[in-house]
Amino acid sequence: MIKEAIFHEEDSNYAFPISKNEITLRLRVAKKDEFAKVQVVYGNKYDYYIKQQVIDMGLKYEDYMFKYYEVTIKLWDVRFVYIFTLNENGKTYYFCEDGVKDSYDYNLAYFNCFQFPYINEVDIPKRIDWLKNRVFYEVFIDRFNLGNKEKDLSYINLKINEIPKPTSFYGGDLKGITNKLNYLKELGINALYLTPIFKSISNHKYDISDYYDVDKQFGSKEDLKELITKAHQLDIKIILDAVFNHCSDQIEQFQDVLKHGKKSKYYDWFIIHGDKVDQEKVNYEIFSICNYLPKFNTSNKELREYLIEIGKYYVREFKIDGWRLDVADELSHCFWQEFRKAVKEIDPNCLLVAENWHNSYPFLRGDQFDSIMNYSFTKATLDYLALNNLNAKEVAYQLNAILLRNNDIANDMMLNLLDTHDTDRFYTSCNKDLDLLICALALQFCFKGNPGIYYGIEIPLEGGYDPDNRRPMDFNKIDYNGKLYNMLRALIKLRTTNDLLAYSEIYVTSENDMLLIIRKKNNKLLKLYINYSHKNKKIKGKTVILCHNYENNILNDKGFVIMEENA
Amino acid sequence: MIKEAIFHEEDSNYAFPISKNEITLRLRVAKKDEFAKVQVVYGNKYDYYIKQQVIDMGLKYEDYMFKYYEVTIKLWDVRFVYIFTLNENGKTYYFCEDGVKDSYDYNLAYFNCFQFPYINEVDIPKRIDWLKNRVFYEVFIDRFNLGNKEKDLSYINLKINEIPKPTSFYGGDLKGITNKLNYLKELGINALYLTPIFKSISNHKYDISDYYDVDKQFGSKEDLKELITKAHQLDIKIILDAVFNHCSDQIEQFQDVLKHGKKSKYYDWFIIHGDKVDQEKVNYEIFSICNYLPKFNTSNKELREYLIEIGKYYVREFKIDGWRLDVADELSHCFWQEFRKAVKEIDPNCLLVAENWHNSYPFLRGDQFDSIMNYSFTKATLDYLALNNLNAKEVAYQLNAILLRNNDIANDMMLNLLDTHDTDRFYTSCNKDLDLLICALALQFCFKGNPGIYYGIEIPLEGGYDPDNRRPMDFNKIDYNGKLYNMLRALIKLRTTNDLLAYSEIYVTSENDMLLIIRKKNNKLLKLYINYSHKNKKIKGKTVILCHNYENNILNDKGFVIMEENA
Repeated sequence: MIKEAIFHEEDSNYAFPISKNEITLRLRVAKKDEFAKVQVVYGNKYDYYIKQQVIDMGLKYEDYMFKYYEVTIKLWDVRFVYIFTLNENGKTYYFCEDGVKDSYDYNLAYFNCFQFPYINEVDIPKRIDWLKNRVFYEVFIDRFNLGNKEKDLSYINLKINEIPKPTSFYGGDLKGITNKLNYLKELGINALYLTPIFKSISNHKYDISDYYDVDKQFGSKEDLKELITKAHQLDIKIILDAVFNHCSDQIEQFQDVLKHGKKSKYYDWFIIHGDKVDQEKVNYEIFSICNYLPKFNTSNKELREYLIEIGKYYVREFKIDGWRLDVADELSHCFWQEFRKAVKEIDPNCLLVAENWHNSYPFLRGDQFDSIMNYSFTKATLDYLALNNLNAKEVAYQLNAILLRNNDIANDMMLNLLDTHDTDRFYTSCNKDLDLLICALALQFCFKGNPGIYYGIEIPLEGGYDPDNRRPMDFNKIDYNGKLYNMLRALIKLRTTNDLLAYSEIYVTSENDMLLIIRKKNNKLLKLYINYSHKNKKIKGKTVILCHNYENNILNDKGFVIMEENA
Repeated sequence: MIKEAIFHEEDSNYAFPISKNEITLRLRVAKKDEFAKVQVVYGNKYDYYIKQQVIDMGLKYEDYMFKYYEVTIKLWDVRFVYIFTLNENGKTYYFCEDGVKDSYDYNLAYFNCFQFPYINEVDIPKRIDWLKNRVFYEVFIDRFNLGNKEKDLSYINLKINEIPKPTSFYGGDLKGITNKLNYLKELGINALYLTPIFKSISNHKYDISDYYDVDKQFGSKEDLKELITKAHQLDIKIILDAVFNHCSDQIEQFQDVLKHGKKSKYYDWFIIHGDKVDQEKVNYEIFSICNYLPKFNTSNKELREYLIEIGKYYVREFKIDGWRLDVADELSHCFWQEFRKAVKEIDPNCLLVAENWHNSYPFLRGDQFDSIMNYSFTKATLDYLALNNLNAKEVAYQLNAILLRNNDIANDMMLNLLDTHDTDRFYTSCNKDLDLLICALALQFCFKGNPGIYYGIEIPLEGGYDPDNRRPMDFNKIDYNGKLYNMLRALIKLRTTNDLLAYSEIYVTSENDMLLIIRKKNNKLLKLYINYSHKNKKIKGKTVILCHNYENNILNDKGFVIMEENA
């Protein structure tokens, strides 16, 4: 046994309640170790020394070096203590807070057993019910659709077939989105993620100069209300994008500091080293390397209240369904705890998705975000289907490793992406191979969490890194009879209507060089096979739900098949 | 290399800021693996792909199976990203979010490097300055000293030399403590932890029936004010003990629920399964197995406000220096976040010590408790010096494992205990061996954190489990010329005056079958050797600060020596 591999952590992604009397436990062991039995010996904290229950753990995940046992236990008493036992060649090992031991004294368990001392419902992350069958469509507003032709169009300098520059304006606006709601509904989309709508001089508007103003290029607050109302009538949810980490140097409060230095009442809203702002020497904290994007100082209470009021305002007044939070991981945990509490008090179902690219468990414990932009999923999919860095077995390992970073509830709400305004277009990354794009979509739509597709994928738009990944949408280029559009539409329909993909269990593995994703609910299984092994593969026929490059039980290279069967 | 052993976690006890521009990183590897170099390759998130800095990590901890490298990095930019490199036999391995790899592409680091995205000062746990040189003395009030002989003494049924029963009352009170402040000051004590003082029918008063009333047996609010004022005049801090998890069934609010059932406005303050309370069937949540201790429902907002106001009241009105929080781990994280914020707003230096017996990192991240009752230290010390379960090498491993559970700041504020009102007396556990007790005290006083001694240790009092561990204090039995009293006094003096023990670095190891604790600050070392190997040991002479059973460079069994030297 490789004892060094054995791992568990209390009150973490390895031990989390999923309801007021159910807790899920995970245990990591070395892949090569064979155990006859792995069990949890558990009980109630106050009589554990005399009364223990035993339950078997089952193998659930496997990654590069480890395998993971899991069990969900229904408790009769939520003052929960436990240890693990591992049986190898007839010998039992005991794993507690003090490590792996040859014996265990339950009389002294109060010193070193594991525990989840009490399941307080308020600490359990909550799944948002409306989210369970949603497919998100990200609209980069300036590039999507011009709706209001009455507005001053003189700022527009980009035509539909041109490659954008950083300073390009195509003219897309809120009315343009409203005008396309029926198009989106027809595609099957039931949730929109809009890049920022607030006043700003750029085309992307991540440099906000007035959080209470909709940028004139994009329209007005009435346009926003109209968009949201009409979207809601079509059962399309809308989340807005806000930047609370920094703002434009054009914002009134920073301008005041520029003028009055330390005497400005907003001086402490920013982090300035010195009495005056020096924009050339950049003596203040900024976002990235942009001196025109001063970072907010969220340890200032007035500023916190100001930002949180913005968060509340659009939920209360415009009934938005959630926030996508830009650069969220550079703000404090304290800030997000306050922000969440305030916003969820107005609407407990308001979704909070953070732009965190990395391991984010400390943000996803239930007191900050519901979800993040799942860029580690993006990377794994790229590595498998675009960059040839991972084969089917390896991508299964990687996807398991990603699932294990978080508890099941956070995993159920992940926003899984192939590409966004911040990455190359997947279609470009996979060398414009439609079959590979389709396989990637199948994976994205069957994985745990919500798919988020980026406008234009239905054409598909090409594009390398920013600003190339923000080309104008060309509705005329959609091939409504082509395989991409129809496959996308079919996948969207599957994801939005098939209950087996809604908050169900997931198993990720590989079989015969194919990636295999299994979703499970109520003794029914949905299976996705993806073949990218450069060989045809035979798969025993079940009820086929959807497929690509699959016929007569043969799955061709760059093909997938989704089947249902009984467990 | 045992790759399975390699471990790191972002934003955790493995990666924590210690100031606004310093971060400490830890890396775990298998003990038997030898690396020529272990380094952190780090940089600023926004130009890491072109600009990386390298810093060596040093070996700092060793436990049963692992060794741990650590480094503290001073940052010029707090938007911090990093990976680890391990050099083994000329080959370099790269350890990132995706695991241990043979190569690493910094151009794609934004997908899978480790990160601490921004050090927000507000998220950093704060060391409390007054705490750094404090020694706590726990007073179990009923058993300490009767001060007010004018009160109704008819409840007293325990004499000074009798063994207490669960229902015994000896008569100790607040005035009795006030009368002994000079005694405590003379002993060197500069912080008191008092068991609950609030209205209650028991001798221990953990079953509180009025949080706003001082129990008559113990005195009045005036007595409390006098005690605190006089203690503060002697620079003795005072922390009170409160139970927010549950209360006595005698409390007005539960009595109201008993009477009115679901119609009571306090019905939701408790967790009742049914319309009425049934105390025989116990259809409500309780503490432990005690039907007279109903658990509070802290998901009720009014209740939360009520409890938090109590927390604030004694800080604001009585200037207490902190709270010891009973059964704190059974309340929600949410509750403690609110509680901390409210109490620290009144006094940022108010100490919050929780009665958490187990791994408590999720509570010690800086948004809930400052510290816990360090019972894992208790267990390790017992195993080494009382129960013969661990030898010097093994206890060093165990103490390292304990230190690694938390960040350095929480470790600096741990309340390290040999015994309390909830455990057997250490003196009894070690078979009344004064030499072993003295060695245990030396360990307790030199370990990272604050020593908390339990009243009567200076006699020393004997006692098995509750109620035997709560025998009356007998001031007449103190042998002021004996080795225990004088050693205790000397250790207290050392801990309260020697800067090398105040928020300094710690290294725990063993040398020649002796336990060796090293504290380090400003290139000076303090070393504690404990010998319990049943052999005499030779130690090269340095400046001896304090010792027991040590002479002519020879440390006898059951002896210790504390020395200072230059690093």
